[in-house]
Amino acid sequence: MGTYRPGMKLWIEGDGGLVMSDYRVRLLQLVEDRGSLAKAATTMGLSYRRAWGKVKELEANLGFPLVTSEVGGAGGGHTSLTPRARELVGAYNRLQARLEAAMETAFREEFDGLAPGAPEP
Amino acid sequence: MGTYRPGMKLWIEGDGGLVMSDYRVRLLQLVEDRGSLAKAATTMGLSYRRAWGKVKELEANLGFPLVTSEVGGAGGGHTSLTPRARELVGAYNRLQARLEAAMETAFREEFDGLAPGAPEP
Repeated sequence: MGTYRPGMKLWIEGDGGLVMSDYRVRLLQLVEDRGSLAKAATTMGLSYRRAWGKVKELEANLGFPLVTSEVGGAGGGHTSLTPRARELVGAYNRLQARLEAAMETAFREEFDGLAPGAPEP
Repeated sequence: MGTYRPGMKLWIEGDGGLVMSDYRVRLLQLVEDRGSLAKAATTMGLSYRRAWGKVKELEANLGFPLVTSEVGGAGGGHTSLTPRARELVGAYNRLQARLEAAMETAFREEFDGLAPGAPEP
């Protein structure tokens, strides 16, 4: 007797192409949390070059900058999200959370009784 | 001035692997509508062999048959979905419709004002 589990992938497209996805929002969130694109890349198992490329691709598709860096200082520089990036990340996270909640309810209601091993209808 | 558009991909996994996806539910729906796996495959631009393989893979992962065929007769045979397949397809379609409705509302509410070209926050 097993179980079924739902999976969902979410993304946002603009006229220029992809502007946000589950994967990319995680990268941006990590940049903000760690204060560094290099540290965010390491946490996600990406090369710095690849992480940088993903951010630049999103910026090109969006038409505005997502990250901003201050060079030097005691900690040796700091990268953070721009106000518009923070807005976008926030909106995406809220959308994702709402859809996950909707998924949980709808899946339970629609798939209850359809579990593997359930008797034939 | 452009627009953002949300995208979503949905699937269901069982203990044996993938048991339903947007793509596969469309194939099964077409089998039921056309009465033939060959016609369903053609409609989706798949070879018969590939469509058959997808159905057999789902059946193996689910542990029960999805399609049933009657050979011969005036029309030269007919393939339809089993009662359990119909239940599964129905549940998946309802789940998909509910999530699309949730997406529409949540996207509008969360991304309103974030359109490309909107003023800086």
